[in-house]
Amino acid sequence: MRRMTFLLIGVAAVAGAVAFLAPGTGHADQEAAPVFVTTIPAGYRDWKLVSVAHEEGNLNDIRAILGNDIAIKAYREGKLPFPDGAIIARIAWSYVPSEENNKVFGRAQSFVAGPPPEWYLQFMVKDSKRYGATGGWGYAQFDKDGKPALEAKLKTCYPCHEPIKARDFVFTRYTP
Amino acid sequence: MRRMTFLLIGVAAVAGAVAFLAPGTGHADQEAAPVFVTTIPAGYRDWKLVSVAHEEGNLNDIRAILGNDIAIKAYREGKLPFPDGAIIARIAWSYVPSEENNKVFGRAQSFVAGPPPEWYLQFMVKDSKRYGATGGWGYAQFDKDGKPALEAKLKTCYPCHEPIKARDFVFTRYTP
Repeated sequence: MRRMTFLLIGVAAVAGAVAFLAPGTGHADQEAAPVFVTTIPAGYRDWKLVSVAHEEGNLNDIRAILGNDIAIKAYREGKLPFPDGAIIARIAWSYVPSEENNKVFGRAQSFVAGPPPEWYLQFMVKDSKRYGATGGWGYAQFDKDGKPALEAKLKTCYPCHEPIKARDFVFTRYTP
Repeated sequence: MRRMTFLLIGVAAVAGAVAFLAPGTGHADQEAAPVFVTTIPAGYRDWKLVSVAHEEGNLNDIRAILGNDIAIKAYREGKLPFPDGAIIARIAWSYVPSEENNKVFGRAQSFVAGPPPEWYLQFMVKDSKRYGATGGWGYAQFDKDGKPALEAKLKTCYPCHEPIKARDFVFTRYTP
């Protein structure tokens, strides 16, 4: 019974949250509201490589950027903006020294991909109509358990990508 | 005629080199002689990602390790040794700060893949019979113009991989 009560409170809280987040005007203004991606694109780990990077500071990760076939084709042809259907994935791993490599090399020089950090996965999904309010890209972020980021966090994506509009809001350049 | 002379000299020089490199004993001891890979495996840039790494020191690169389907399957199943036909590719790029990213982030934190360094590409090709003398792997290295390394350089590959026999001579671990 106690568990049931908690469950009901939970449902009520979620319903309240949804009501709070929904547009209050009664108009069909969904186009103007930011929309985010909340499911992990299927098969992303098999996609082709765009490039790699290392972020210092709070992130302190080493990362691979992959693209689905539509994204890779656009990258290789140097075509901007990316066409609808393009998806770019960013996988981050914690940046760790490799003791086992260093032992063989005889010096501390090797840094490798360690366990996944808190925000393991990010995606940009191109759909110029659906995500028109954020440059045609829907943003997504997932933690190491596959749980999507909340809207408040996802709202911070576009402002950071906005300054690079000239590159269709995409940071990573393709490296052959 | 002059061109023909050069051609003949060229052929003679190659023949001489081959004779010089061939085992002098007259026995079919090719198995014992190290054999190296001198052609870039087709389509490697489309292969799936194994992991990423950064090497400091003289190398100072950021790198992606890719695998053909046979290699990726073995990696994902955790099967050692790798089966014949597995090929592992290592692409290195110079490790450079990204001024354009840092400008957006408001701090110097971003390092990306720059132009290819002198030794841009490396491969390990599994063929337990052909490359039996070097742990079943044939080693290959290519510069940024696609020119293969000379035998003297390739002879330095196996001694460095030999200490990690327990991992079938492969440094890079797969990171999901």
